[in-house]
Amino acid sequence: MIKWLDGAAIDQDVVVSTRIRVARNLSKYKFPLFMDPKEADGLTNDILDTMKDVLKDNYRFIRTRDLPSMDQEVFVEKHLISPNMIEHMDKSSFLLRDDEKATIMINEEDHLRIQTLFSGFNLEEGWRLCSLIDDLLDEKLDYAYDEKWGYLTSCPTNVGTGLRASVMLHLPCISMTGNINTIIEALRKIGLTARGLYGEGSEVTAYLYQISNQTTLGESEEEIIDKLNKVVHQIINRERSIRNYLKKEKNLEMEDRIYRSYGIISNSRILSSKEAMEHLSNIRLGWAMGILNHENFKDIMELMIDIQPANIQKNFGKDMNIKERDIARAKIIREFILDLEG
Amino acid sequence: MIKWLDGAAIDQDVVVSTRIRVARNLSKYKFPLFMDPKEADGLTNDILDTMKDVLKDNYRFIRTRDLPSMDQEVFVEKHLISPNMIEHMDKSSFLLRDDEKATIMINEEDHLRIQTLFSGFNLEEGWRLCSLIDDLLDEKLDYAYDEKWGYLTSCPTNVGTGLRASVMLHLPCISMTGNINTIIEALRKIGLTARGLYGEGSEVTAYLYQISNQTTLGESEEEIIDKLNKVVHQIINRERSIRNYLKKEKNLEMEDRIYRSYGIISNSRILSSKEAMEHLSNIRLGWAMGILNHENFKDIMELMIDIQPANIQKNFGKDMNIKERDIARAKIIREFILDLEG
Repeated sequence: MIKWLDGAAIDQDVVVSTRIRVARNLSKYKFPLFMDPKEADGLTNDILDTMKDVLKDNYRFIRTRDLPSMDQEVFVEKHLISPNMIEHMDKSSFLLRDDEKATIMINEEDHLRIQTLFSGFNLEEGWRLCSLIDDLLDEKLDYAYDEKWGYLTSCPTNVGTGLRASVMLHLPCISMTGNINTIIEALRKIGLTARGLYGEGSEVTAYLYQISNQTTLGESEEEIIDKLNKVVHQIINRERSIRNYLKKEKNLEMEDRIYRSYGIISNSRILSSKEAMEHLSNIRLGWAMGILNHENFKDIMELMIDIQPANIQKNFGKDMNIKERDIARAKIIREFILDLEG
Repeated sequence: MIKWLDGAAIDQDVVVSTRIRVARNLSKYKFPLFMDPKEADGLTNDILDTMKDVLKDNYRFIRTRDLPSMDQEVFVEKHLISPNMIEHMDKSSFLLRDDEKATIMINEEDHLRIQTLFSGFNLEEGWRLCSLIDDLLDEKLDYAYDEKWGYLTSCPTNVGTGLRASVMLHLPCISMTGNINTIIEALRKIGLTARGLYGEGSEVTAYLYQISNQTTLGESEEEIIDKLNKVVHQIINRERSIRNYLKKEKNLEMEDRIYRSYGIISNSRILSSKEAMEHLSNIRLGWAMGILNHENFKDIMELMIDIQPANIQKNFGKDMNIKERDIARAKIIREFILDLEG
């Protein structure tokens, strides 16, 4: 169960999810990188004391180092915390809202990173919730803020708004027809960037692209979000128009592609992560194009997370080598399909 | 419906079929190659007159040239006549026994070619029936026979017994483990040869090998058949022992291979002949190894013939280009699977 995926998902034929995060630091503390674990724990306790009074919703507090390493990875694979949190686990901790739609990370690269996560295309609600939490904390915490530079952050690329807004898009048809590189290049020119499923440095799999703002300085939060919103709408329309063309002109070829993937994932006994993600990408496309009619194919993103290495091992309750995971992955997917076919 | 495939099939886990043919010529006629169509028709009528008295079973007489070209190919694909019959269709004709287990070809390369065809490994019955027909005809027809050279034939490679005995073997596991070339080489040294599904010059597909005697001179019919019998038994045992090993040591990998093929043929919308044959080969192996339990998978050979180009077009009642056949092939196979799953 991945809670944050719940709820109405706008433009879900193309958009998987929307993530907003802001980076904040407290003026009276060194940046996390320069703290020792003891100082970091002092900061953490300060923040927790403040938050108790401020945060109305139910949050769970977790120190990264208290988690077994498999569980740390599970949180990353579910997109609830960043990989950086594990790297700094001697200092890092987080507050996770019960519905998983908000995480407040402490001592990641910055003192605070407030993240909101929504299913589908939802910059508005994502930004609203993120701002709300930010405002609540701002009332009680002394943010490091400079009139000229804006919010001061550990890494200069976040100085200014400290905002990263990102939208995860499923773009199989733009990719198939070879236009994706043109789009990535065009994004770069207007200060946006495209990354893989697990953000910076992660490979693009399953035609999933995270598109986000690269720059945080010189534009207001609203401008950043507005620009991303407009560009994502254009990309959604482009993907849809290619899908419509393919449905009209190449329907049988599309059916062949999608049903083959369906046949393979329903039957294979050994599935690498890469191969599984490719087939699930086709299944998601088949669902979005109305070729595969089963309602529950909309949960393919959840399945994509369930078959990541740590999630598989958590599910089976033990450490597994690659071969064992490939077998377990095939089993998880076959059971998902069997469930569908009831 | 391919009638000759009916009946008990011995060693059917490895052996698809057994074919025997003898080449005979009549002393008072020129070889077919040197005849004009009129002379060939004269010979055909002479033979038919004689056969009326001799053949007790029900035979259908067909002049090759009277068949639409699609139907000619259908007979070839079903292994009921040789491709040579079409090349010489201005002169050739044939008598086909109702159960399709015997064909008497007239004016192929020789005046007469008597063929028997059985499902599974059945050199004994194949040879018994072929001999019987040969003896019956021999009583009434004046065969060209030389004390020293034996039966005289149009091509010197058939002189002597005029016999070709061949067994079609399904050897996926010998092939997978890379031993097939050693076996083919060993066969050659003892006067046997391995060919593809459609005999001389046809490519090996689906790991189906026709193993037959290369030489017809210097050995008696019984010696030829006995040698082939012994060698085929050895090959069957080799294939079985590799299958047993794989089932014990690599069962999951075998299941993965076989179920993937099952998933693909159950779902794809476009299937080339080559790809379909590869998957059906895996299905046949899965059935033989007890991985796929459905009884009707034993009919995979019939399906392999049904998806050949002419059989597809005959089935759909129209000429089709390659793309149309690939679509029709996928449909035929999906329907076969749907039938199985009831």
